[in-house]
Amino acid sequence: MTYTRQMLDTYSPAVDIDLNTLATTIDALNECAQACIVDVDADLGVPNPTEMVKCIRLCLHCADVCTAAARIIGRVAQYEADITRPSLEACVAACKTCGDECERHAHMHEHCRICAEVCRRCEHACRELLDALK
Amino acid sequence: MTYTRQMLDTYSPAVDIDLNTLATTIDALNECAQACIVDVDADLGVPNPTEMVKCIRLCLHCADVCTAAARIIGRVAQYEADITRPSLEACVAACKTCGDECERHAHMHEHCRICAEVCRRCEHACRELLDALK
Amino acid sequence: MTYTRQMLDTYSPAVDIDLNTLATTIDALNECAQACIVDVDADLGVPNPTEMVKCIRLCLHCADVCTAAARIIGRVAQYEADITRPSLEACVAACKTCGDECERHAHMHEHCRICAEVCRRCEHACRELLDALK
Amino acid sequence: MTYTRQMLDTYSPAVDIDLNTLATTIDALNECAQACIVDVDADLGVPNPTEMVKCIRLCLHCADVCTAAARIIGRVAQYEADITRPSLEACVAACKTCGDECERHAHMHEHCRICAEVCRRCEHACRELLDALK
Repeated sequence: MTYTRQMLDTYSPAVDIDLNTLATTIDALNECAQACIVDVDADLGVPNPTEMVKCIRLCLHCADVCTAAARIIGRVAQYEADITRPSLEACVAACKTCGDECERHAHMHEHCRICAEVCRRCEHACRELLDALK
Repeated sequence: MTYTRQMLDTYSPAVDIDLNTLATTIDALNECAQACIVDVDADLGVPNPTEMVKCIRLCLHCADVCTAAARIIGRVAQYEADITRPSLEACVAACKTCGDECERHAHMHEHCRICAEVCRRCEHACRELLDALK
Repeated sequence: MTYTRQMLDTYSPAVDIDLNTLATTIDALNECAQACIVDVDADLGVPNPTEMVKCIRLCLHCADVCTAAARIIGRVAQYEADITRPSLEACVAACKTCGDECERHAHMHEHCRICAEVCRRCEHACRELLDALK
Repeated sequence: MTYTRQMLDTYSPAVDIDLNTLATTIDALNECAQACIVDVDADLGVPNPTEMVKCIRLCLHCADVCTAAARIIGRVAQYEADITRPSLEACVAACKTCGDECERHAHMHEHCRICAEVCRRCEHACRELLDALK
């Protein structure tokens, strides 16, 4: 059980959300933000970074939306659907686009292969949470 | 002319957006994030912080979505509508809700009055940019 | 092996740092930032939030320095001691002060007990990394 | 008078700091973070981004330490010297290193010339605040 899950367990959130789904998404968002940050650093170090420009830009976007969403959905006591839902939708889009681009480089760069995997997991978790919030 | 406007002027963004609208929104987002952060600090110091709990929570949400959106729309070269639009929509919702709550306390707390004003300006700027991106 | 560790494994960082120490610290920083964000939310919901004001403020500081440090030390390819070291020192101080305050409330609030534990772990990890960077 | 200055004016900070110095630094930090974010985007679009790799990495570091410091020093009610001082010192170092690197490209890239100027202003403001906090 992660610390996120333990923390959420100690108080009753305002909305009727399964805490496992919520904690899994928060952890996936933080993992994804961090993987994207490291992937930018790795991409900048390849022999020809020109090929990685799109990947870098998408990783930067993805890191920022995921960091913000993890903070927002971590504050469950004041759940605001109009803030939470588009925040998660931005993450779904960023993880999808970034994951697709990372996958294009996966055969060449192991860091992109892992980053793509983390983006897919996060995209999936955000979609599950969006469904659960319906 | 702010530094944001000067910076954007030095290179051609990928999308056909009026640079004034874009720079105004970025600056409004950063002003709003900062005002919300300071407002949380001020709210915590009032004689009865229990009354300010909702305001604090909304300011925290608002600061995080605005910081993320300023970063995302500041990276204009890789414009991704599916990331940009929900990010701005989350800001519109956060600024609206937070501005409404701050306004309720405006007659008692000058910091809430100013924060409400900054939220309104940011909400307006985000709506204008969303319209311009159509 | 966490994704952070896997990512770092795929490219050689500029400095001679043990990758386990580095990955452990990055993961501890992200865990701590998230725990502090959730603890703020939980603290605001207790019957008398006035007693939690100091705890909330320290958690807010701690979350922000930890998020920034995780990003900075995650970008290992351009290691800058003058940026990295004070960033980690700010985390050590924030985790220590926040951990102490959370501990004061641990007997009353389980969320503070867990948050204190996460702060201690993060403080320890940052100290280890600072030692390793010497 | 900026909104930051207006906000700070509404409540008495815990430390005896000149509010103009404080507000100037907060605004300089946010300007610098934003300029660095846009500069990364612009650097990635130059014909040969390989030459800009160091500049991009330093801008990324600089944006993150400045965003965190603006948040921390904006919460003046719980001033903690052991958190505030290293946070500002990390900004001084990041602004100095990033400003130097941007200046190297200033004759070629107008965005780097402006970013260097913003970094210098922020470095100066952080040094002034550190002096004022002594």
